Amino acid sequence: MTTAAKPSPTACVIVIGDEILSGRTQDTNIRYLATRFAALGIRLKEARVIPDVADVIIGTINELRRRHTYVFTTGGIGPTHDDITTDCVAAAFGRKVVRDPRVVEALRGYYGERTNEARLRMANIPDGPDVALIENSLSIAAGYRIENVFVLAGVPSIAQVMFEALEPTLTKGDPMYSQSVDAEVGEGDIADALTAIQNAHPNVAVGSYPYGQAGKARTSIVARSTDRTEIAFVIDEVAAAMRAVNAEPVFGPAP
Amino acid sequence: MTTAAKPSPTACVIVIGDEILSGRTQDTNIRYLATRFAALGIRLKEARVIPDVADVIIGTINELRRRHTYVFTTGGIGPTHDDITTDCVAAAFGRKVVRDPRVVEALRGYYGERTNEARLRMANIPDGPDVALIENSLSIAAGYRIENVFVLAGVPSIAQVMFEALEPTLTKGDPMYSQSVDAEVGEGDIADALTAIQNAHPNVAVGSYPYGQAGKARTSIVARSTDRTEIAFVIDEVAAAMRAVNAEPVFGPAP
Repeated sequence: MTTAAKPSPTACVIVIGDEILSGRTQDTNIRYLATRFAALGIRLKEARVIPDVADVIIGTINELRRRHTYVFTTGGIGPTHDDITTDCVAAAFGRKVVRDPRVVEALRGYYGERTNEARLRMANIPDGPDVALIENSLSIAAGYRIENVFVLAGVPSIAQVMFEALEPTLTKGDPMYSQSVDAEVGEGDIADALTAIQNAHPNVAVGSYPYGQAGKARTSIVARSTDRTEIAFVIDEVAAAMRAVNAEPVFGPAP
Repeated sequence: MTTAAKPSPTACVIVIGDEILSGRTQDTNIRYLATRFAALGIRLKEARVIPDVADVIIGTINELRRRHTYVFTTGGIGPTHDDITTDCVAAAFGRKVVRDPRVVEALRGYYGERTNEARLRMANIPDGPDVALIENSLSIAAGYRIENVFVLAGVPSIAQVMFEALEPTLTKGDPMYSQSVDAEVGEGDIADALTAIQNAHPNVAVGSYPYGQAGKARTSIVARSTDRTEIAFVIDEVAAAMRAVNAEPVFGPAP
């Protein structure tokens, strides 16, 4: 088993924001981060969406930072009254909030006479020599790392440039590869074959996802593993199982 | 405060599925359910995305069913080896899994000679006289209620018809209304005014969401409350704050 040699780092994502829980906003940060983690060999173990409530944010950070290699938060680092993430992160670590002079300078440079106390709050970070700013090429709000917790913006484009900037600092694992194969077939028609294939390849996660297209029931089978050769074996076996019930397999891109 | 008279029911959503945590699939069930809960006056307190791992599913259900009025799960009730939700729900409640004869009959009627043991697994539900099937007008997989936990399909269209079918059985609260107003303004330009408005209207949640449009920084302010009259006051005050910095407010639909 390829993964046994070196345990992969684990991660969780905490999406902080009433706008997701109210239905106003469709979260897309979880999927973006999930995709990046898979490529980097970091195992995303869970994601949570929590409200803008201080004790919930503090409690969730403290629960999850002890459980995973990395914790990523998104949301709540802007200048308004509902941006309470940094106060909560600092509280979770028992630290004071301080104002980073480099961010203050950047804010004053950008906003000029429109700089005000609200905007200067975006320079707030938890205190400590280990707290490291995350580069942000799109805006000035300070994302940062404190121990194993990364605090990112909620706006997806900004969260993404922050992640790209911090990515080189992460410990990588074995990348998780995947390939899909799908056909006009009911899940139930190939379920027994899939069980046998899964049992024969314990190092490959075999997922089965039914969907409809043009009124026809179709199923997409996804094989995920750190071992591309074994993915190829699994996909071939799944395709054979599809053909055995007279369905024509359509292969996704090679891993 | 309108909500003080009758505490609203609370809910959480548990999205079960490796396909979300791998980045393969963009979850949309959280947003759908969030939108419905807001209309029904049920407060969505958190959402979690967890993998297809039995002890995680069992532990999460047992943690959250004690904390919220209602728990909704999505995913993992199909016929394949990776569909383990029902086994886990039964284990969480210390119940056996039984095969519901009504669902078996429906499966045999639909699949005819293509009925097999894998498909019959879709008739499995936890044992107990209180376990109630949820009507499913799109497919035959059995969703069900056990105590305060509702087990729904992962496919969004099926999750939605299941929710529509079970909705009349839910205890409702005061519906949460909302209105937005936005303008070409930086969050920081109106942050102080927003803080004052929020403080003056503690029964209204005032959210501030920056976004870019055609290269311009814009901010959308959302007022959410059970009290539509107070939302109107808040939105008027926010619009005045926008005009005070020479930005033209654009109003969303009345709540």
